[in-house]
This record gives sequence, C-alpha cells and structure tokens, in this order.
Amino acid sequence: MPRPITATIHLSALKHNYAIAKKFSGSAKVWAVVKANAYGHGLAPALRAFADADGLALVEVDGAVKIRESGWQKPLMLLEGFFHASDLALVQQHRIDVAVHCHEQIDLLEQAHLTPPVEAGHRINVHLKVNSGMNRLGFKPAEITRAYQRLVAMQSIHVVDLMMHFANADDEFNPVLPVAEQIRRFNEAHRLLGNTLETSLANSAATLLNRAVKNDWVRAGIMLYGGSPSRAAAADFGLLPGMTLASELIAIQSLEAGESIGYGSRFIATRAMRIGVVACGYADGYPRHAMDGTPVLVNGVRTRMVGRVSMDMITVDVTDIADAKVGSAVTLWGRGLPVDDVAQASDTIGYELMCAIAQRVQIIVDE
Amino acid sequence: MPRPITATIHLSALKHNYAIAKKFSGSAKVWAVVKANAYGHGLAPALRAFADADGLALVEVDGAVKIRESGWQKPLMLLEGFFHASDLALVQQHRIDVAVHCHEQIDLLEQAHLTPPVEAGHRINVHLKVNSGMNRLGFKPAEITRAYQRLVAMQSIHVVDLMMHFANADDEFNPVLPVAEQIRRFNEAHRLLGNTLETSLANSAATLLNRAVKNDWVRAGIMLYGGSPSRAAAADFGLLPGMTLASELIAIQSLEAGESIGYGSRFIATRAMRIGVVACGYADGYPRHAMDGTPVLVNGVRTRMVGRVSMDMITVDVTDIADAKVGSAVTLWGRGLPVDDVAQASDTIGYELMCAIAQRVQIIVDE
Repeated sequence: MPRPITATIHLSALKHNYAIAKKFSGSAKVWAVVKANAYGHGLAPALRAFADADGLALVEVDGAVKIRESGWQKPLMLLEGFFHASDLALVQQHRIDVAVHCHEQIDLLEQAHLTPPVEAGHRINVHLKVNSGMNRLGFKPAEITRAYQRLVAMQSIHVVDLMMHFANADDEFNPVLPVAEQIRRFNEAHRLLGNTLETSLANSAATLLNRAVKNDWVRAGIMLYGGSPSRAAAADFGLLPGMTLASELIAIQSLEAGESIGYGSRFIATRAMRIGVVACGYADGYPRHAMDGTPVLVNGVRTRMVGRVSMDMITVDVTDIADAKVGSAVTLWGRGLPVDDVAQASDTIGYELMCAIAQRVQIIVDE
Repeated sequence: MPRPITATIHLSALKHNYAIAKKFSGSAKVWAVVKANAYGHGLAPALRAFADADGLALVEVDGAVKIRESGWQKPLMLLEGFFHASDLALVQQHRIDVAVHCHEQIDLLEQAHLTPPVEAGHRINVHLKVNSGMNRLGFKPAEITRAYQRLVAMQSIHVVDLMMHFANADDEFNPVLPVAEQIRRFNEAHRLLGNTLETSLANSAATLLNRAVKNDWVRAGIMLYGGSPSRAAAADFGLLPGMTLASELIAIQSLEAGESIGYGSRFIATRAMRIGVVACGYADGYPRHAMDGTPVLVNGVRTRMVGRVSMDMITVDVTDIADAKVGSAVTLWGRGLPVDDVAQASDTIGYELMCAIAQRVQIIVDE
C-alpha cells in the first residue's frame, strides 16, 4: 500500500460550487477554470464535475488537447494563449480559444499564415486581454486599438471578447488600485473598440464580492474548489470543500515538560504531552510555513500542529484526545476543516495548498 | 508544446554529489535517500545517478517496489518502515529493509506469523529506531531493550542496526537539544543492547558539519541534490546543483513610477521600469512566500522578482537587461543561482522548493 495519505475529491461538492458560481454570475456565462491540474483536484475528476460548465479555461496547452480528446465539445480557452508557434496547429485543430495579450503573439499569428477557414466557425477565437492595472498580461487601453486592428486584419482570427483581471477584487477600495479604477480603464478600452465586443472581467473574488461588476463571461476558479478568495469564510458563500486531505497517525510520543519536538527544537512542551506523528509533510504539499497552532483534526477532534513541518511528517498535540492511537484518522484540510484556516496559519492562501498536492498523494474520487 | 517551464536534472552533478557524500563519510557506507520522488528529481534519473550507492532509502512502499523491479540488487530501506500489515508481503518478497520505530509495528510483525526463512539472508532486515530527542519516530533508550527483545524473538527478523535522527545537526550547540546530548542518549541505547549493533546516525547536515559523529551508515539526502543543509553555501562543500528550474519571459510590461504590479499591488514602481512576466508560478512549485528581491536570472543576468507570486506567473525587474524580450531564458534556480538563495528569500529551505516541483513542469534529463 502507498503511504496512508490521500486526497479525496468530492465531485458533488465541485458540482454544487459550480451551481453557486452560476447563481452569483446572474446571466453571465461561466468558464470553469481547471488550470494547475484543476487546482490540484485532477483534470479527470474536474471534467466530470464541471460537465455543465459553459466553458473550460486553463493555461496548459497539453491539458487543453487532453480535454478535447476526452470529448469536451463546448468552449475551451487558454487563459495565457499560446506560447510558441508550434502551439498554433494544435489550437486550430482542436478549436481551442486563446487569449492574446501581447504583440509578440500577434507576430506569431501573422507569421503562421494560417489557412483561411472554410467556415466562419473554424476561425481561431481570440480573447483580447486588456491590462487595466494588474501589469501582468495584456494591452494598456492606449495600445488596444492597434492590437485589435492587427488581429481583425487576419481572416483566420475572430475576436470574441475583451478580457481583464483584477488585482484587488478582495480589497475593493485598495488605495493603490481600487476595483473601480480597473473597471474605468477597461471601459475605456472597450469604448475605443466601439463597445461591441463581449466582456470578461470577473474572477471568483469579483464574482462573489463585487456584485456591481457586469460582464458576459465570468472566470470561476478557487470558488469551484471550495476555497475562499477573501478573508470571508468559503461557507459564508455556500461553498463546500472540493478536496479532503487525510492521513493517519503513524506513531505516538510521550513528552515530559521541557522536551522539544522536531527540527530546530521549535516547540517545547509546557507540560506532559502526548504527540501524534502524522504521515504528511511538506513533500506531500503541506505548507512548511505552518506555525505551531495550525489546526488539524484527529479522530474528528480539532487540535493543533506543534513543531516544524518535516518532509514526510508533522507532529500534532493529542494530549486531550484519549482515543488517539497509531492508525487514527487525521484530517489536514477539507470536510470539517476549511483549507483557508490552514492557509491562514501558514501565511498563505488556500489556492497554494490545493495546487501543491504532490504526486505521491493518492487521489480518491468520491462519487 | 507544454508551457515553457522545465526542470533539468543534471545526472553528472548527482553522481558528483554522491562522491562528495562518500568522501565526507569516511569508511561509513552511504544510503542515498530518494524519498519524495528523489527530492523532486524523479526516481528514474536518481536510480541512474546513484547506481554506485551502497544502498537506497525512501519512505514510499510503492516506490521501493518500483526500485526492486527496476533491477536494484543492493540494500533498499524504508526509513519509516511499513505502515500496514498488507505491506509486509511486499517487504518480504522484495527484500526491503524496514525501520521499526514503534511497538505497533512490532505487533503487526508478530501478528503476521511470517514464514520462517529458509536461509538467514531472507529474514526481514530491521533498522531499530532510537528516539534520542527528536521526539518524532523511535524508542527512547528506556524502551529499547523491550523492543529489541520482541524483535529478536522472531525467527523471521534480523536486527541490523540502531538508527537515530538529529534535530539540530545544523546547529550543533542548540541550547535546547545539542548534538552531543542526542549522541549521548543514542550511545546509552546502544550500550543497553550490548554495543554490538551497527549504527546509523548522520543525515547530510551531520555528515558535512559534525565530523566527530561516527557511524557505520550515513543517510545522505539534500546534499546529493546539491542543496545545503545549513546556512553555509552548498558550493562550500563542493556540491553541484542537481536541478535547474528554467522558464521564459512570456510578456514585457512598461511601468511608470507609481504603478503597481500583481495581486494586492504589493510592489510599486519607484521609477520607470520594464517588467518581465515569467511562465512560472506557485502551481509550478515556486514559493508563494518569495519576497520582492528574490533573485532570478534573465538571459543569465541576476535580477529580482517583484510583486506577489501568482499561480502561473511571476514578475521580474528587467529594466536594466536591455536584451530581455518575450522568449528570453529565465533561471529560477539551479546552475548559476543556488536554490538556497531562493529559499532564503522565501523564508524556507531548498528541500521544500525541490520537492514542490509540480507534475506540470516538464522534466529534462541532462545526460
């Protein structure tokens, strides 16, 4: 048997969360974002759970091809577009929509001399990216007209919509770059192109928190997996955990007051304690930054991690959990313990924890 | 093509590092530790690089079986032993040595009523673990005699050696638990069993830093992969990077002073700047804790990461790298940029970074 650590993927929860995304999106269509191996949940389970999605979006070209080959017929988009000229044949063959965010990508499109399509539906669908202040990908409003004109000059290209990404959707009135300022810049770009294109602005945070944001396509990511995009609890939005990371106690140590645990002797027992050793470490994807006190469930009882996270183990306080023994069930996050609670105690976000699930963690699909 | 991010595994460097481990180990034999997918380097490349190792050690039962099936004939050890009764058949069939660290494991061995071996060489080799203060796995000296007696009462078991693990090998005079105190406790256990068993004390840190530690088997981990187990540079020990994580710029943004980058608008340009966007994010295994200033190479020139790490991208300062453009080569760590430098800027250790390499990162074996 593999080590006793498993990630159970709850298909019903993923389906439920997609329904929540639809509800919060009003009349907008929803891209289910499945990049990064569906945020660690696995592409295959995600495809089953999001069968009703209006479209699927990701950043991996090879992943997109796999999705088409699995029979997905609805829209499919590469959120960063293509990376190399050699991607274009795949994009055309598999009818994969692409974001276009820089002139270098348009150069590649022009140089490819793509066969003009026989039918309009076979053109490459382009989602033109506006840099409205994130300063990561996209054209600033002042550059958008030239980018657009270069694209529409090619018969093989169809510009579907204008897309942007929020830097601070979880912090609407951010003093450096408030949500309203990004919308203002985006609207300027939209206006420069005649206000006719469809639009896609909102990620999970904007969908859940900035209800005034209007767009035709929402890009739902973290919320589908039951993580919160803000300090609010995921449950407050009705979201359910998509993944439960679980393991077992593989040893128990009895400590006297003054004894220390693990590397660096970071934690020192303040009284006689029973310590459970869990088969889960940072090489499984558990965050090494987790501080003493990070919550964990043993036999369903909430307790705390103590001592530094090792590569293959963590140590937890089971002093007051009388029935804790070798083989006892441990929940690292998921049902009964929000991933965001663990993330907060590790100075990071649930997104990182889910994506970090290592290959050696056995995936179990909960039908 | 996949996204332009690759982890190149330098077989010659791994071989070289093993030779360094041997040199530092004197007459001791060396276990090459290949747990956690060989610290992210892949089991298959590691097996080729460590063909000369005296033994291989890991924690994954399924990995150990794979190693035997690949033809490995020399010693092979599970550092945490077996986890379930069902592992024992595999352990016996594939001649896998096991650590035994708790009475519950001995219970399983007794309950299994293993067939007494036809020849002495077919007994299960047990490495008895002493808890000398790490308080993670193992028997305290006061418990060691009983554990040993239970084991040797079984004809199917051969106790090979006593093993322990240092909590503070990188901090020899740690006030809570100095190296000498752990050695003292270990020696007590060894003496209680008659001073006849072989011993295994040293990990990479103890091997490189605590030259007074004597043992028959060294367990070399991080050093084999070119990471340092302490604040000293890996190069100071003659170690070479085993992995180079590389990617490309996929976009360039021009910022004016006062403009911000990325989520939370954490970084604000203090002057007109050129920013390169790299196809590498925390879902590739890059640490989300990386601070502004974390080193990165663009076209071989050392510069700094700025702005928060995204799931699929980081942003770097290319203001003074005139030839930086879309497609420019980026080194995240490895040759030319020690992984430990990146780890330090992310408040973690190189071990975590290597192990975190995600499945979506393409592995290239450098022969």
